[in-house]
Amino acid sequence: MKKINFKSKFKKFSDKWSPKVIEEMNDYQFKIAKIKDDFTWHSHPETDETFIVIEGTMGIEFENETIELSEGEMLVIPKGTRHKPFAEHEAKIMLIEPKGVVNTGDTINEYTAKNDQWI
Amino acid sequence: MKKINFKSKFKKFSDKWSPKVIEEMNDYQFKIAKIKDDFTWHSHPETDETFIVIEGTMGIEFENETIELSEGEMLVIPKGTRHKPFAEHEAKIMLIEPKGVVNTGDTINEYTAKNDQWI
Repeated sequence: MKKINFKSKFKKFSDKWSPKVIEEMNDYQFKIAKIKDDFTWHSHPETDETFIVIEGTMGIEFENETIELSEGEMLVIPKGTRHKPFAEHEAKIMLIEPKGVVNTGDTINEYTAKNDQWI
Repeated sequence: MKKINFKSKFKKFSDKWSPKVIEEMNDYQFKIAKIKDDFTWHSHPETDETFIVIEGTMGIEFENETIELSEGEMLVIPKGTRHKPFAEHEAKIMLIEPKGVVNTGDTINEYTAKNDQWI
């Protein structure tokens, strides 16, 4: 049992759109990521997905709306909902989702990251 | 689908040690609480429990150690681990755990709060 400091963890990597696992709770994982520019459209047919903005601002584009998130805000995306995250400037975010969820969901392409990258 | 702003949600209540549900992800809930002074010793035999400090500082006493948490820090307490949260000054925290988890776990007393208090 060891506490996690978000700022310290973010200092350990610089690559974008490549979620790093910082902790697990039951069969869920907490992952942090640095993001900038556009991600790829995708959905997770099997699970909801939680975004929490730790620093900066980001947006998530949906088929019918775009939601902007700032530091101290969170959004839960219902399973199966197509979305495209983006950030004009680099943002630091945390994702919470079941272990094994692929970052690009049902869309496998150059944005697809390896799972279980612990830092 | 609606984004959650932590600071706005904390403005909506003032009672202590009484977690308020702000969102759900699959069968998990995000709950926020204001805390001050000592909580009761307890454990959750069926699940891990996540603490994230949103504002202020808190401590969690375990049988063999005490862990202090500040703003921007999180701790996952393994299931079945006896613990006693406390805060010298009022702190604002978020809990993440499966729906239905009782705040005092296996210890029912005057600290036991009603579940599913949405704000």
